[in-house]
This record gives sequence, structure tokens and C-alpha cells, in this order.
Amino acid sequence: MARYIMKFGGSSVATVDHIRAAAGVIARRKREGHEVVVVLSAMGDTTDELLAKAQAISPRPNPRELDMLLSSGEQVSIALMAMALREQGLKARSWLGHQVPIRTDSVHAKARIEKVETARLEAELAADVIPVVAGFQGIDPDDQVTTLGRGGSDTTGVALAAALKADECQILTDVDGVYTTDPRMVPQARRLARVTFEEMLELASLGSRVLQIRSVQFAGKYNVPVRVLHNSGEGEGTLISYEEPDMEAPVVSGIAFSRDEAQVTITGVPDRPGNGYAILNRVSEAHIVVDMIVMNAPRSGLVDFSFSVPRDEFEQTMELIRSAAAEIGASDVLGSANVAKISVVGVGMRSHAGVATTMFEVLAREGINVRMVSTSEIKISVLIEEKYLELGVRSLHEAFGLDRAPSHAK
Amino acid sequence: MARYIMKFGGSSVATVDHIRAAAGVIARRKREGHEVVVVLSAMGDTTDELLAKAQAISPRPNPRELDMLLSSGEQVSIALMAMALREQGLKARSWLGHQVPIRTDSVHAKARIEKVETARLEAELAADVIPVVAGFQGIDPDDQVTTLGRGGSDTTGVALAAALKADECQILTDVDGVYTTDPRMVPQARRLARVTFEEMLELASLGSRVLQIRSVQFAGKYNVPVRVLHNSGEGEGTLISYEEPDMEAPVVSGIAFSRDEAQVTITGVPDRPGNGYAILNRVSEAHIVVDMIVMNAPRSGLVDFSFSVPRDEFEQTMELIRSAAAEIGASDVLGSANVAKISVVGVGMRSHAGVATTMFEVLAREGINVRMVSTSEIKISVLIEEKYLELGVRSLHEAFGLDRAPSHAK
Repeated sequence: MARYIMKFGGSSVATVDHIRAAAGVIARRKREGHEVVVVLSAMGDTTDELLAKAQAISPRPNPRELDMLLSSGEQVSIALMAMALREQGLKARSWLGHQVPIRTDSVHAKARIEKVETARLEAELAADVIPVVAGFQGIDPDDQVTTLGRGGSDTTGVALAAALKADECQILTDVDGVYTTDPRMVPQARRLARVTFEEMLELASLGSRVLQIRSVQFAGKYNVPVRVLHNSGEGEGTLISYEEPDMEAPVVSGIAFSRDEAQVTITGVPDRPGNGYAILNRVSEAHIVVDMIVMNAPRSGLVDFSFSVPRDEFEQTMELIRSAAAEIGASDVLGSANVAKISVVGVGMRSHAGVATTMFEVLAREGINVRMVSTSEIKISVLIEEKYLELGVRSLHEAFGLDRAPSHAK
Repeated sequence: MARYIMKFGGSSVATVDHIRAAAGVIARRKREGHEVVVVLSAMGDTTDELLAKAQAISPRPNPRELDMLLSSGEQVSIALMAMALREQGLKARSWLGHQVPIRTDSVHAKARIEKVETARLEAELAADVIPVVAGFQGIDPDDQVTTLGRGGSDTTGVALAAALKADECQILTDVDGVYTTDPRMVPQARRLARVTFEEMLELASLGSRVLQIRSVQFAGKYNVPVRVLHNSGEGEGTLISYEEPDMEAPVVSGIAFSRDEAQVTITGVPDRPGNGYAILNRVSEAHIVVDMIVMNAPRSGLVDFSFSVPRDEFEQTMELIRSAAAEIGASDVLGSANVAKISVVGVGMRSHAGVATTMFEVLAREGINVRMVSTSEIKISVLIEEKYLELGVRSLHEAFGLDRAPSHAK
């Protein structure tokens, strides 16, 4: 007997029929003799619909009231799921954040879970009841309803798994696992049997939107094995866990990419302390998230400074940077909104040199110019012209042997 | 400065535009210098839509889960209202049943309020904040979400008014008050400036569906003046309160009626103790509500026994009574689903004889046969053929002078 958290996202509980189907999957797991705690998101587009209502009333809705509003969505899905499980002849009861309780800090719209009280849920499990818990929501020390931010139900699932010492937190979704890259772009993409938390962080943040990034950090911190599984509950999915000592990690696990990129370059910046700050501060004060940052070595006392931002903030960034350039006496501001990012990710990279070499070699062979590079311990990202994105991803996917099952995989 | 509870029903907050309009009405009251606590129902048909979802999953949804589901509706309306009030430049915060808290017993779907804690709401009022409270919901001693039954938001409003010692509980709705009878049937119907709690109970239970009957009982018990007002907040509406000593009550305040009636008569019942019970018990065990009951004096050791039931339970009642008749040796079972009830209501009746006389005289003059009669201290009800309903109501409305303003009214 194992103890599982089973988390279903909005698309998996979008309609009454979806809820009924998910209840069947849960019932099967339960009848296999396991303990199950269910965590749900709101049905389908509920959250977006509620958000639209709020914005029709207030251009910038009060965060406390927005949390009150949005947290109603999960209340609906958990109640219906408890009913559906009862129809399956099982004992089930729904639980809100304040009832568990799931204690958070007081930062509305992006609260952090501080503590999950387990007494109530343990009592339910001991009584053979399936607790159905509202994802995304919690309660602060003053009894105020809080929410954990977009995709927060994943975090709820992982937090419950950690608190209840579950064997796995299963994330049931409309794909059957984490892939070496997007199968819609590369038909040869392969499901990964395992990835590490670190790899998943890089893959998630780069566009493989299977899991909320915060939930992966959380899972890593508390060492909660997370399994991404298809809605149907069938298959092995992808297990996200720590690297095991006996596991011969592949050099590269996957290739992530993102189209929504833009590049801004400011040339001829006088090489004085504070100029880098003057540029970036302008952007970050406007709440624009800067991703890659590159500055070359000074030449004749001048440096070029490049960075990437989300594409839909390109115009605003260009404006901000033009005015900054004037102030600090830079020569020119250049930019392109037609760029994309490719990232090669793998924990095996740590002990293998040559990944960057292979990457540049492949891109050069295909005639793809690299406009910017950034690296981390387990990732190399490049910014290229968007029109080469598919070619780049496919070539790299093949070059790193991702279309063949790695030797260590079952 | 007065302290008001302002309760808006579902049709008054049906859309974002309705909510914005209601916020305007609340803001006006607040700017007049009054303290305001808002109580809301769910938006429009939300509750029915949620109920339909529940029934698609389970023919008889678990009451605890149904309360969990349905109470989400008010959470949406209060959050949006708090946002709308803030857009008006006012301080406002929404409050759920468990946050106030509004403590109830544990009877799901028809919980009774046991206590409203006022510390939090008083603190909000002291800080010049408008609390926006979810109607219909509460929390039981085990932290379980409960609901108060259909129209329970009225009860929430009255309970808050009692606990907070408000000057009035204002029920804002799509009519501008309580009328002497339904204006759609009798164009001469007049808005009543005042009615007593007792009259309102008789009028509400007989079809003037302005207020939930339980909220009126509650208001009477705690002597909370209730004012039925138009959504727009304009006009005087109808004040529901205790009869004042100096108030010369009109003999008849209003005429209520109901079409959804059916009559069942069982003839030639042997006049033995227990036969009445044998008949009625059969019906009440099937959860059919019996309204009027009439038994004539025995003749040759036999009695006729008549009662009325809701029309949609007529067929089932006839079946039950036919089998009961066979068992107790009654002669025959007769019935009609084409009957309607007219009730003449007024506290002044207590001290005035002759209301029944006038009533029978008027009905006889119009050729309307009375099939059944029942009386209470402040009400006389008759069952007649449905086709005479309009004629009966109009004739009685005129005969009791209800189309003229009474002498004591302003």
C-alpha cells in the first residue's frame, strides 16, 4: 500500500464528464489498495472567467478581493468531485484551504505555504475517506483567504505530499509525461522516464508548461517524488526526483524553447561603474523580467550590453532603454522582436565537457547565427532568429541522440 | 446616523452591471452618513446552475457536498461587490460565513444560525469599512460549511441586523414593497407602508415571495425592523415591524393567493379514533405537505375528510389515499387539481368580527363556490375552483377597500 497525492488540473476537471472520468481514475487507484488524497484546480476556464468579471469592475482589482473571488473556483470542483467519488461507492469529502488548514503568509495572489496541518487529513485517511482538497488556496494568520498564484494547485499537491509523507505526488494532466522536447515540433520527441528536479526546473521555466516552477522547487526542497501522468492514470509517466547515485544520467535530457523573446542591445556604453545598473534598473522598475544578460569586454572604454525580455514588453523596453541611453551617453539602441530561445538541458552536462561545442557546431552547420548565449550548470541557452527555431530544435534533438532511448532507461 | 443592513438578492446582483448599480446605491447610503453592512446572494441563476451540475453527477447529492458547492456562489458576488465599492472610493471588504463567523448547527442544506460573532464586523465598521457578507452560508462547530436553505440570505441579513443592533434590515429587491395583492392580477393593488411580522408571515407563506418566511420569523423573534425596498434604494418601501399601540390597523391588510393547490376528499370514513391519523400519516410519510384540513361532523357514524396538497403531488396523494381508503373501509376518494386558494390577511381581524361574513357574501354574490375553509387569528383562507381565482381576488380586494389608502397611512 502506498500513499498518493493525485492532482488534477483545470483541463482534467473542465466539465461534469471530465470530473466523472477523473473520479473513475481515482477510484481505480483506491481499489488497488492505496491511500489517496485528491487535489484539484478550478474547472476549465473558471479562473479566467472570474478574472474577466473582476476586470470588468475594476482595472486593478484589490488583491485580497481577487483571492476571495478566484478561490471560489476550486470550491466548486472539489464538491462535485466528492459527489462523483461517492457515486463510485467510495467515501469522500471535500476540504477547503481554511478547513485543512493550509496556512500561508499574507501575500495575496502569491502566498507561500507555511504549514499544512495534517491531523484532519490523517483522520480522514484512517477512516478510509478520500479527502478532496482545494488546490491554489490557503488561509493566512488573520483568517484571510489567500491564493498561491497561477498553477498553485501543483504547489498544494506537493505541499500535501510533503506534509503527509506521501510516496508520490502524481500530477495528472493532458500529456502522458515530460518529453525530450515539444512533440508537436519534433515528432521523434520521446517521453522521459525520469528527470531530476533541477532538469525539470530548467525545462519548466523554458516553456514545457507541465508543472508550475514553484512546485518543482518545493518538491526538490522536501524531496517529494513527483510523477507527471496522463489523465487516464495509465502508463508510467515521468518521475521527477533526485538523481540517484547509480543512475547513469544522459548528458542531455531535453531541449526546451520559447518563442516569446525579444532582444535589446545598447551599444557604445561608457565603461563606468553604475551604467549596467542604470540600464537594468529602468527595466526592472517597470516590472519587466529580464532573462539573458550579456556584456562584452570593454573596447576603447566602451561596452555593448544586450539582454532579452518577453516579446510583449519589447516596445516598452525599447522606449525605456532609448531614454536611458541618452542619459548615460551610449551610442545606439538596437533591438529585435523576432528572436527565439533554445535551451539544451541535462544534469549529465556537469561531468561532460563538449556540450556547448556540439551545440555551436550543429547550429553553425545549419547556418543558424547565435545572437546571445547564457549558461548554467545544467543548461546552455542560445538566442537565435525565430525563423530558425524549428530547424535548430530538430537538429539539436537529433545531435544529442534524444530520439533514441538512453541506455539506462528501461 | 443609523446602522443599516442592506441585503441584495440574486436578481439584484445578476451581472457585473447590476453589481455596479447596487454599489452605487450602497455608496449613496454610506455618504448620507450611515453605517452599512451589505449581505448578498449569489449572482442571478448561479445557484440553479451549480445545482444542475451536482444533479448531473449525482441524483441525490450528498448534503454536505452540496453546501460546499452552493456556498461558492456568494463568494463570487461578495468579492466583486467589494471591488465595485472600492471603485466608488469607499473602503470595503468581503467576508465569508466562516470568517465572520456566522455559527450554525450542523444540519446541512437547512442549517439554523446559532450565533453571529460581531467583533470583526464591529471593528470593520469602526474603521469606516463596509463589510460585504456572504448570505446563505455559515460554519458549524466542526468547521464544516453549512447553508441556510433557499432564500437564506434574507435570514443572514436579519441575523446580522439582530446581532449588530442595526436600525433596519433593508431587503433590496425588484419590487418596491409589499402589496395588498399581486399587482399583475389586480392593477388597483396598493403598496403597504407597513405590515406586521404576523401579516408578513401569512402573506409570504401564501405566495407573496418577497421574503423568506424563516427570515420573517427570525425578525419577529428579535424585533428587527425589516424594510422591503426597490433595488434603486429609492422610495419608502414597506416596513415590516410589530404592531404599534397607536397604529389603527386596517381590518384587512392584503389578499394572498396560490394556484398550486389540489384538493383530496375521502368520503364515508368510519368515525373511529385513529382513522384521521391513518389517512394523514400516509401522506406525510411521503413528505407531502398537507395545508388545509377539514373534517365535518359525523353523520350515521361516517365522516368526510378533506385536505389540500401542492398540485404537483396530487397524483401521488390520490394513490396513497385510495389504498388508505380501502384499508379503513371508506366509501370513496374524490379529488381535484383545479383548485386555488385565496387568503384574506390582517391583524385588525382579531378585533373585528364579520370579515368571514363579508368574504362569503362577496364570493356568493360572484357565484363562487367555497370548497374548503380554514382560519387563523389573522387569516381566512378558502379553496375555490381555479377558474374563479382572478374574479375572487379582485372582488375581495375591492370589498375590503384595499384599493384606497387606509386612514392611518401617511
